[in-house]
Amino acid sequence: MELYSGYINKLVDELAGLPGIGGKSAQRLAFHIINLPEERVARLASAMTAAKANVRYCKCCYTLTDNELCPICSDDTRDKKTIMVVENVRDLAAYEKTGKYRGVYHVLHGAISPMIGIGPSDIKIKELVERCGGDVDEVILATNSSIEGETTAMYISKLIKPLGVKVTRIASGVPVGGDLEYIDEVTLSRALDGRTEI
Amino acid sequence: MELYSGYINKLVDELAGLPGIGGKSAQRLAFHIINLPEERVARLASAMTAAKANVRYCKCCYTLTDNELCPICSDDTRDKKTIMVVENVRDLAAYEKTGKYRGVYHVLHGAISPMIGIGPSDIKIKELVERCGGDVDEVILATNSSIEGETTAMYISKLIKPLGVKVTRIASGVPVGGDLEYIDEVTLSRALDGRTEI
Repeated sequence: MELYSGYINKLVDELAGLPGIGGKSAQRLAFHIINLPEERVARLASAMTAAKANVRYCKCCYTLTDNELCPICSDDTRDKKTIMVVENVRDLAAYEKTGKYRGVYHVLHGAISPMIGIGPSDIKIKELVERCGGDVDEVILATNSSIEGETTAMYISKLIKPLGVKVTRIASGVPVGGDLEYIDEVTLSRALDGRTEI
Repeated sequence: MELYSGYINKLVDELAGLPGIGGKSAQRLAFHIINLPEERVARLASAMTAAKANVRYCKCCYTLTDNELCPICSDDTRDKKTIMVVENVRDLAAYEKTGKYRGVYHVLHGAISPMIGIGPSDIKIKELVERCGGDVDEVILATNSSIEGETTAMYISKLIKPLGVKVTRIASGVPVGGDLEYIDEVTLSRALDGRTEI
């Protein structure tokens, strides 16, 4: 016997398909949504369909935007000759929050990962190489310091260096406020390798 | 300057209003939703609005259903003279999963909590008392063993006992597989009080 009605089961199934939402949270969310005012549910549903319908890739840096160019690429005060390469839009957002970076970005939408079948042609590498054919001084590789991120950074640097563009990698080391005792050996030895004079 | 487009911000805001979804998860979910196939987003959105539009309270036990009576209340094999009182639909689902209970339920949709302004008239207590006016042998109080749950159980038992209905409370004690060392003193002393001969 079905415990819930078809409508509830369907909503739970749909919610459970989202990342980071397990069966129990999906159930909790479904009941919460059913108890919301009708107008609030309509707003939530239409926010989803509207975002899906209107949001597209920036034609320059491939971040998500609802115009041809994203706010960063269309900002005249940003340095268009410096491109920071990130794996996804959340990483871009994280760097923007620092307020320290005045260049532009290139969003790969993933990292090379042979294990799960993601090759160089599945992410926006070709598009980055094309951009580097233009007037670019420096490409900063800010992919994650995971195996996939490092592989992607290596792959890109080999493609771009021959074009005469300076390629840099963000530093890896001990996080600020991090307690040495709890940091893994790979990070510690990276921090040692990357030591700078004070 | 707005980092994201209006559509993304709107979706993030709507998602962040759901329980258990913070700012970061809302962002992650929003990007995931935008990257889903259009048809999948439409399905998710319509599952929400359809559930909201079609799901209502069972007119007998007040669980959520899309018919007048829920599958449990309309099941002839269930014992209608035994009513288990639970705080919410998730608790009902948890007891149904045990497969041990053959009576019916009554969903209160909350517990008495003066701290957050929830009084007896804000939950389905009046409706329970009305049901007890009919042919009922036993009411099993299965509200949580929190202060609110206990208060609610006490309140209900005082209302229902005078009607000549047997009122019981589910046992509280050490959870199966629980390690005594890690269990709080209140639970331990409850377990002692509730000891049974073997």
